[in-house]
Amino acid sequence: MKGLRKIQPYVPGEQPALTGIIKLNTNENAYPPSPLVTKAWQTFDVANLRYYSSLANQSLVDALAQKHHIPSQWVTTSNGSDDILALAFQSFFQSEQPIFFPDLTYGFYPVWCELFHIPYQEVPLEKDFSFALAALPNQLGGVVLANPNAPTGKGKTVTEIEALLQRYPDRVIIVDEAYQSFGGESVIPLVAKYENLYVTRTFSKDASLAGLRVGYGIGSERLTGVIQAVKNSYNPYAVDMIAERLATAATQDTEYYQRINQKICATREQFCQALAQLGFTTIPSQTNFVLTTHPLISAKTFFDKLKEARIFVRYFPDKQRIANYLRITIGTDEEMVQVATVLKNIIEEEQNV
Amino acid sequence: MKGLRKIQPYVPGEQPALTGIIKLNTNENAYPPSPLVTKAWQTFDVANLRYYSSLANQSLVDALAQKHHIPSQWVTTSNGSDDILALAFQSFFQSEQPIFFPDLTYGFYPVWCELFHIPYQEVPLEKDFSFALAALPNQLGGVVLANPNAPTGKGKTVTEIEALLQRYPDRVIIVDEAYQSFGGESVIPLVAKYENLYVTRTFSKDASLAGLRVGYGIGSERLTGVIQAVKNSYNPYAVDMIAERLATAATQDTEYYQRINQKICATREQFCQALAQLGFTTIPSQTNFVLTTHPLISAKTFFDKLKEARIFVRYFPDKQRIANYLRITIGTDEEMVQVATVLKNIIEEEQNV
Repeated sequence: MKGLRKIQPYVPGEQPALTGIIKLNTNENAYPPSPLVTKAWQTFDVANLRYYSSLANQSLVDALAQKHHIPSQWVTTSNGSDDILALAFQSFFQSEQPIFFPDLTYGFYPVWCELFHIPYQEVPLEKDFSFALAALPNQLGGVVLANPNAPTGKGKTVTEIEALLQRYPDRVIIVDEAYQSFGGESVIPLVAKYENLYVTRTFSKDASLAGLRVGYGIGSERLTGVIQAVKNSYNPYAVDMIAERLATAATQDTEYYQRINQKICATREQFCQALAQLGFTTIPSQTNFVLTTHPLISAKTFFDKLKEARIFVRYFPDKQRIANYLRITIGTDEEMVQVATVLKNIIEEEQNV
Repeated sequence: MKGLRKIQPYVPGEQPALTGIIKLNTNENAYPPSPLVTKAWQTFDVANLRYYSSLANQSLVDALAQKHHIPSQWVTTSNGSDDILALAFQSFFQSEQPIFFPDLTYGFYPVWCELFHIPYQEVPLEKDFSFALAALPNQLGGVVLANPNAPTGKGKTVTEIEALLQRYPDRVIIVDEAYQSFGGESVIPLVAKYENLYVTRTFSKDASLAGLRVGYGIGSERLTGVIQAVKNSYNPYAVDMIAERLATAATQDTEYYQRINQKICATREQFCQALAQLGFTTIPSQTNFVLTTHPLISAKTFFDKLKEARIFVRYFPDKQRIANYLRITIGTDEEMVQVATVLKNIIEEEQNV
C-alpha cells in the first residue's frame, strides 16, 4: 500500500484500573472538581446533546477572560492542552530554522515536530536541571518552554521569559503553563505587551478535570487569528457541550481551587521533608509532582516495589540523565504518608539483603 | 513575525440560540438521545473527572465492535468524525499524486488537503449529481467518498464501491458514512476483504449526540495501526470520560435508534411529497436532509423568509451549481408540516407581488 504515514507515537503513562490503588503516575489533582462542577453537571439537560456544541465556546471563553483579566479575543479553547499545543505548533512554527526546547521536558514536543515536519533541537539542561536560555543561538524558529517544567518541576521567572521575548521579537515563544498554579510564575500579564507570546493552559491539573479534556491558549489578537484559522481547519467543535459547561463552572470557582492547590503545595513540602529524611535528593518543585532520586537504591527497584504495594508512580528508564529518578505526583496527606512509609520499608528491606 | 501559517478555514453552518426556533440547518437528529444515554449520565460520578480518560476507550471500542460484528482491533475512536477524518487524511494520503473527491461534497475535504499539503482534485458531479467513479484516472493518491453524499443526499451501492477498492488496491479509499443510517448502504462488511478501505462514522447524526463529539473509524489492522500511531502523536485522549460513557450507552441501544431513524426517513418521504406539491424539485435523499429547488422562487428568498419565520435551513450561495437549492434537515413531523406551510405562504406571497 502506498501513501501511508510512518511515525513513532508518543507513549503516555500507564492508566491502571482505579480501584484499590494510589495513583501518582500522571500528575492528576489529588482532589475532586469543585462543587460548582457537580452542580453544572446535575442541571445539564442531556436532550440538548442532539445539537452541535457551540463553535466559539463563548461562555467558557468569557469566564476565562474574566479570570485572567484579559479580553475574550485573546482566548482559544481546545480539547485538552495537547490539542492547543498541537494547533500552536502547526500555527506558529512554519520555519526552516529549528525550534528549541530542553532535552528533559514534556515528551510530546518532539513528537509534534516529527508529525508536522518542524525542524527542532533539544537543548541539554544544566547539571541542576535549569534551562540556560542565554545559551540559545541568535537565529531560531521559535522556543517552547514548559513553565514550570516537567518532569523536573523547575520554573523560570517572568523576568527571564520577558528577556527571551525581547531577544526574539519576530519568533513565537510558546509557554506551556500546565503546572503554573502549583508555585510557578505566569506570563499571561505579558501577552498585552508581547505579540510573539503564546501561553497554553489546561484544566487537567489545577482544575481536577483531566477526564474532561479541556485546555486553552492565550495570545495576541494576531496569534489568536492564526491559531483559530488552523483550529477551524482541523476540528472546530473540539470542546463538547458538557465539557464547556463544566469547565465554565470550574473557572468560576477560584476560591475552591486556590484552597486545594495550596493544600497540595503544603503536602508537597511535607513529603519532600519525609523524602529528605529517607536520604532522597529531590529537585525543588513548583508543580504537583516531585522528581527524586536515592543514592543507594535504584529507581527501578522503588518503582517495582511501589507497584507491588499498589502505588503507581512514574520513572523514565529511557531518559539517561533521569533514569535513576522517580516522578511522584503529590496526592493527599494520607496518601503521601503511606508512600513515605512504603519507601522507608523498601529502603530497610534492600539494606538488609 | 515569521513562521505563521496562512490558511483559509472551513466555515461551518450558523449555530443560532436554540429557544423558539426550528433548527434544520446542520443535520442534527430530530429526536433526543436514547434513554440509556440519560441513565449513563445520571450514574456517572463527577469526582472521577480528576483522572485522565482512558487511552484505548476500550468499553466504547468493544461496544462498537459488537454492533458492527467486527474485531475490536479494527476500531479507532475520535473527537467527532472531523477528528477521525483529519487523522485519516494525515495517515493515508502521503502521496505526490492527487486524491479525488466530488466538487459537491463535505466542505471540509479540501480544507484538510490545504492544511496537510495534500494534492487534490475535485471531480464535477454529473448533471443528476451522481459521482461517475469510472471516470477517475488510473493513477491517483486516494479517494474520499461521503456515502451517502452531502449536500446532495445521494448514495453509492456496495457493489460500486467494491469495484473502486479493486481498481486501486494500493491506494486507500475513505468512505465517510456519517449519514448511512438514513437509507444508505454500508461498506463495513467489506473491511474484512479489503485492506485499503477505511470507513468513518459519527455519533452526531444517527445517534443524536452532535454535542458530545464522538466519531470513529473502521479499517484493517494495517490501516488502524497507522492511524492510531498518528492519533497518539497528535492528541491521544481526545474522547473524554463522559463522552465515552454516553457513547457506549448509545451504541448499546440499537432498537431505539432504529426506531427514531426510520421515523425520520418516513417524515422525509412525507415532506418530499409536500415539496413536490409546492412545485419543488428534490433530489431523492438517503440522508436526514433534502436538497431542493423551486423553479420560480430563489433559494435566497426562501432562506431569508424562513429565517424571518425563525426556521433555519442552509443554502450555499458560493457553490454555483447548487446556489439555487435549499438544504433542509428533516425534523419531526410537526416541524416539517410547519415548514411546508411557511414555504407555501412564501410561494403565494411571492406570486402575488
